[in-house]
Amino acid sequence: MSVKAKALYTFLSENNGEISIQENEELIIFDENSVDGWFQGENSRGERGIFPASYVEIIRSRSNSNVTDCSISPAGSLGKDFSTPNTSLHYPQNDYDDDDYDDWDDWDDRSTVVDDADHTRNPGANGHAPENPMTNNPNVHYRPKPASRQDSSSRKGSMVGRNLNRFSSFVRSGVEAFVLGDVPMMAKIAETYSIDMGPLGPRWKENPKPFSCSIEDPTKQTKFKGIKTYISYRVTPSHTGRPVYRRYKHFDWLYNRLLHKFTVISVPHLPEKQATGRFEEDFIEKRKRRLILWMNHMTSHPVLSQYEGFEHFLMCADDKQWKLGKRRAEKDEMVGAHFMLTLQIPNEHQDLQDVEERVDNFKAFARKMDDSVMQLTHVASELVRKHLGGFRKEFQRLGNAFQSISHAFTLDPPYRSDGLNNAISHTGRTYENIGEMFAEQPKYDLFHMLDKLSLYQGLLANFPDIIHLQKGAFAKVKESQRMSDEGKMDQDEADGIRKRCRTVGFALQAEMSHFHQQREVDFKDMMQAYLREQIAFYQRVVQQLERTLRMYDCL
Amino acid sequence: MSVKAKALYTFLSENNGEISIQENEELIIFDENSVDGWFQGENSRGERGIFPASYVEIIRSRSNSNVTDCSISPAGSLGKDFSTPNTSLHYPQNDYDDDDYDDWDDWDDRSTVVDDADHTRNPGANGHAPENPMTNNPNVHYRPKPASRQDSSSRKGSMVGRNLNRFSSFVRSGVEAFVLGDVPMMAKIAETYSIDMGPLGPRWKENPKPFSCSIEDPTKQTKFKGIKTYISYRVTPSHTGRPVYRRYKHFDWLYNRLLHKFTVISVPHLPEKQATGRFEEDFIEKRKRRLILWMNHMTSHPVLSQYEGFEHFLMCADDKQWKLGKRRAEKDEMVGAHFMLTLQIPNEHQDLQDVEERVDNFKAFARKMDDSVMQLTHVASELVRKHLGGFRKEFQRLGNAFQSISHAFTLDPPYRSDGLNNAISHTGRTYENIGEMFAEQPKYDLFHMLDKLSLYQGLLANFPDIIHLQKGAFAKVKESQRMSDEGKMDQDEADGIRKRCRTVGFALQAEMSHFHQQREVDFKDMMQAYLREQIAFYQRVVQQLERTLRMYDCL
Repeated sequence: MSVKAKALYTFLSENNGEISIQENEELIIFDENSVDGWFQGENSRGERGIFPASYVEIIRSRSNSNVTDCSISPAGSLGKDFSTPNTSLHYPQNDYDDDDYDDWDDWDDRSTVVDDADHTRNPGANGHAPENPMTNNPNVHYRPKPASRQDSSSRKGSMVGRNLNRFSSFVRSGVEAFVLGDVPMMAKIAETYSIDMGPLGPRWKENPKPFSCSIEDPTKQTKFKGIKTYISYRVTPSHTGRPVYRRYKHFDWLYNRLLHKFTVISVPHLPEKQATGRFEEDFIEKRKRRLILWMNHMTSHPVLSQYEGFEHFLMCADDKQWKLGKRRAEKDEMVGAHFMLTLQIPNEHQDLQDVEERVDNFKAFARKMDDSVMQLTHVASELVRKHLGGFRKEFQRLGNAFQSISHAFTLDPPYRSDGLNNAISHTGRTYENIGEMFAEQPKYDLFHMLDKLSLYQGLLANFPDIIHLQKGAFAKVKESQRMSDEGKMDQDEADGIRKRCRTVGFALQAEMSHFHQQREVDFKDMMQAYLREQIAFYQRVVQQLERTLRMYDCL
Repeated sequence: MSVKAKALYTFLSENNGEISIQENEELIIFDENSVDGWFQGENSRGERGIFPASYVEIIRSRSNSNVTDCSISPAGSLGKDFSTPNTSLHYPQNDYDDDDYDDWDDWDDRSTVVDDADHTRNPGANGHAPENPMTNNPNVHYRPKPASRQDSSSRKGSMVGRNLNRFSSFVRSGVEAFVLGDVPMMAKIAETYSIDMGPLGPRWKENPKPFSCSIEDPTKQTKFKGIKTYISYRVTPSHTGRPVYRRYKHFDWLYNRLLHKFTVISVPHLPEKQATGRFEEDFIEKRKRRLILWMNHMTSHPVLSQYEGFEHFLMCADDKQWKLGKRRAEKDEMVGAHFMLTLQIPNEHQDLQDVEERVDNFKAFARKMDDSVMQLTHVASELVRKHLGGFRKEFQRLGNAFQSISHAFTLDPPYRSDGLNNAISHTGRTYENIGEMFAEQPKYDLFHMLDKLSLYQGLLANFPDIIHLQKGAFAKVKESQRMSDEGKMDQDEADGIRKRCRTVGFALQAEMSHFHQQREVDFKDMMQAYLREQIAFYQRVVQQLERTLRMYDCL
């Protein structure tokens, strides 16, 4: 059913099928259930197409909607209130993935979290930018992300001006508040994460108790007498060796905790949701492989791997304890701006200009890496398609043609030369096999490459926002220094801002360093694994052909 | 310039771009220079398209054309008189291939051959059916072939009726005349070819002095101060070891001698002519490879290899001797119907019914083999296209994408990890190489397969006509037996027909047997060579990948 809506922000169409919308423009939405974070509708100029659901507000007849109202439906509802009038919904949830959301209430107690808006989701529900369903573009869209929440701790603060764009990651993440000193120091901070100086600069101090974690055996489970079906994974951390069983929605809960808490850190995206075929073998297999990569990244990250909520996710096997631990994690105060307080940085002096330059280098690198990861993803996907289609077909056709020759040769009995005919027919079968081998091969090489590239696309997509934090902080330092020079601000206050900006700089550099370190390991592994599988593949082809050739030797 | 024309025979269009024409229909021809034996024009119903040039007669303003006039322009003219009015030209020559025809006059003395019309060419000038230039169909067209000449030896003969279709191969080849006893026995026959009984039936007696012959070193030559350019091949027969130098037109002369002389024998077609790019390396290389296969078939054939004209072609190195030998070959009387007199058959009784059955089996086999050779040709050609296009492109894209990743990794200097970057970049180059290897590979395998398949397409295309000879002869036997039974023919005469029909049957079986024998050798070789090259190719790929993988080991 069509509904009216209003554009909250201007959106410029970039791809085929998209339409541009202007801030405050009236729109018609054809179906208020968004697909992958996109609405289909018509703008005031009569153009029809899609635009991001998060850029518009649906106007209800008895609506009390307020464009500047950033309060969001509480987490527990997760779209359950979607059909209720009276609600201003900036971010209608994707509601196609029942398995992931159907019974969120099971273990969510909304009364305990109503005061913190942490369940808010961006349109790309697990942090993905919306995927354009019409272009099927694997690109991660660098679009301005409208705010998902307004930091509740903001208060009337220092003299340094606040950014006008309240939706910038700098503001949203709480880093502005932190830098400006708006976040009160806590009496006692139980949680600390240290940064030390490595040979290449600041780095996260390693987790003193490193561990890994396996994800195995995705199993179809049912409940409510078979009405609900879901997949359960066996998750076994190496330091306990005790398996726990988790569903995708549990991963998703954890992921949203991570997003909420860890500013300045590139939280790996969860594997995509899928509207249909969630119980098909290929999809289950793919999701498992990608959850494994996600888990490896989590356990290898010095900060993320030590997060209490993660520990709870990995270890809790008891239903009651699970709920308690969950509530504890949701009540965690050291999130966003406060998380910055948990960081301990070394005393080394770093020139802010140098840090700026380091970050700029990284930015250029990350952009180029993002491009080339995209390029390789595209090429590898195309190669998969060729393996399953063109390559298989060509070799099977060749195989058929040989078989057909062999068949013709049997038609004139006195001259049928069975040995030769068998050999040719066998050659035909060999090429048919080779065609099948080509079709099978992506399972052994290209799929794994695509999995890893997808993880990196997600990690890289986070960096523009993270880099923006440092830029914002740096601007505040300059502004406060100027004000101090002009006598409009105490030098103490300006020094405080500079000091807190150092923390942001150290944290960002540590995260950059960790990214590089992990990238080196991951890409080396990826390339080696690919080459090994490729070698094995072509060797198998050679073996098949050699066996076939031998049939001609004895003729 | 458009010219008027008249359809001599009905032609039914079979492929896209062709139009049907009716016997006696008036036509317009857009360009009187046919392409590959096809005219482009319009029929009386206003349909536009192509049709075989040999099916129509151009009507000239001052024409003395006569539809039933089967006299042909003498060989020496070869299209030179084409633009002269007053000439009824049923078979305009292809005049696009200068190298092959430009200076035929050089060594052709038309006065000596004016009394025999042996230079007549079918529209497919060297015996190929016309190739449809619009569909580019590799199919050999089984179209009724209008007669190219009327056997001059036919005379009022025995009581058995002559076939009404004077254009059937049975009549054209002279076999009808031979079977009916119209061909007078010569006083002395210097030339004989024997058939003996092998374990599988009649077979040609082997050439007592077998030899082979190499074709090498195609070299561009010029004459008339560079105005004329042609390619000369070094031809070295094994039994003399002395090279002679021959051009394509010399092969073509020999080929036409063979067509003229050897009835019942499947004369291998020469490699196709080509309108443009005759001096391009790829074309020269392809023509050389195919001339080699043609030559191998010639030297391996017990009858063809012993032909005096062939011997002359292989040995004569002196210009004057060459002309004399050529004239001698052109004056050879033991051609067509008379060639049948040179055959010596064993005394073994063969039931005509059995022979008929043998021939029917072979016919079914040959048709299926022709289909499957066509299929394999099509698949292999497509595979060549894929190797040069899709396969190369895919691997090169993968290579580029790896290079691009490697380049991105160099952009953040403190973390550039040169070893890994070099390895990834090298992997990129490896895949670019592999792309090139794919593009090169057809030279080593598929081209050779296609060469051999093309030879066999030509050999198989001859068989319907050859089989028709036996069918015609068999019909004459039945007819004469009936007449003899009815007392309308002397038993002696009927016995003569039966005896001569036996010769035809033995010859055909010997030729079938030779075909099978050669096919077995050729296809075994073809398959082995293909598999060997394929193995070598994939082994090279493996080696490249293994070398590349090693670069990651020391990181």
